[in-house]
Amino acid sequence: MCDKLPMQSDGLVRLSKIKVNPEYIDEYMKYAVEVGTASLETEPGVLTMYAVADKENPCNITILETYASQEAYKSHIASEHFQKYKQSTLHMVDSLMLDDVTPLNPDNIITNTIRK
Amino acid sequence: MCDKLPMQSDGLVRLSKIKVNPEYIDEYMKYAVEVGTASLETEPGVLTMYAVADKENPCNITILETYASQEAYKSHIASEHFQKYKQSTLHMVDSLMLDDVTPLNPDNIITNTIRK
Repeated sequence: MCDKLPMQSDGLVRLSKIKVNPEYIDEYMKYAVEVGTASLETEPGVLTMYAVADKENPCNITILETYASQEAYKSHIASEHFQKYKQSTLHMVDSLMLDDVTPLNPDNIITNTIRK
Repeated sequence: MCDKLPMQSDGLVRLSKIKVNPEYIDEYMKYAVEVGTASLETEPGVLTMYAVADKENPCNITILETYASQEAYKSHIASEHFQKYKQSTLHMVDSLMLDDVTPLNPDNIITNTIRK
C-alpha cells in the first residue's frame, strides 16, 4: 500500500453511479475490484475507491471516489489500470453518473485500504 | 474516539439517501453533523457515518453508514443522539431511501474518524 497524499483544496469527492448490463455483471465486478485495488495500492492521490452494489438490484453500483487533487484525478484517469478497466467495461455499462459531492463535515475523515 | 468492533457476519452497509426541504437545509446540516460525530465518537459498532451533499443539488444528501452487526444498528437507532436527530429533523425531510448494499471487495476496508 503506497503512502497517501493529504487532501488538497482542489481535491475531489465523488459518487459514481453505474448501471451495469445484467448480462455482464459478474465480469464487470472483476474489473471493478481489480481497478479499485490497483488504484488504492499504487496511487498516492487516490484516497478512497470504495465500490458497493445495491442488495435489491446488484447491477446498480456506487463508488465513493476521493482524489487528493485535480492532478491526482488526472493521473488516475491516465493510468494503465484505469484505462484497462474503462476500455474493457465500456460495453457492459448501461449508464454512468458522476455526482461530485461535498462532505457535510470537513473533519469527518475516511481512509481506505486493501486488506492483505 | 471509542475503539471499534470488528465487522460481523450480520453487519450492515447502507447508503441512506435523503432529500431535504430546501427551506431547512442549513438547520438539517447541523443536526446531521452532530449525530454523525456523536455516533462515530461514542458507538463501538458504528464503523462509518460519512455524509455528503450533491454539489449540483445540496439538498440531496447521501450517508455511507456501516454497522458492525444488527445489534450495533439497533443500539444506534435507540441512542439518545440518533433519537434527537430523528425527531428534530422529521419535518425537514422530503424523502428518505435506505439502500442496503454489498461491498464488491470484502477486503476493501474503510475506516472513519472525526479529526480533532
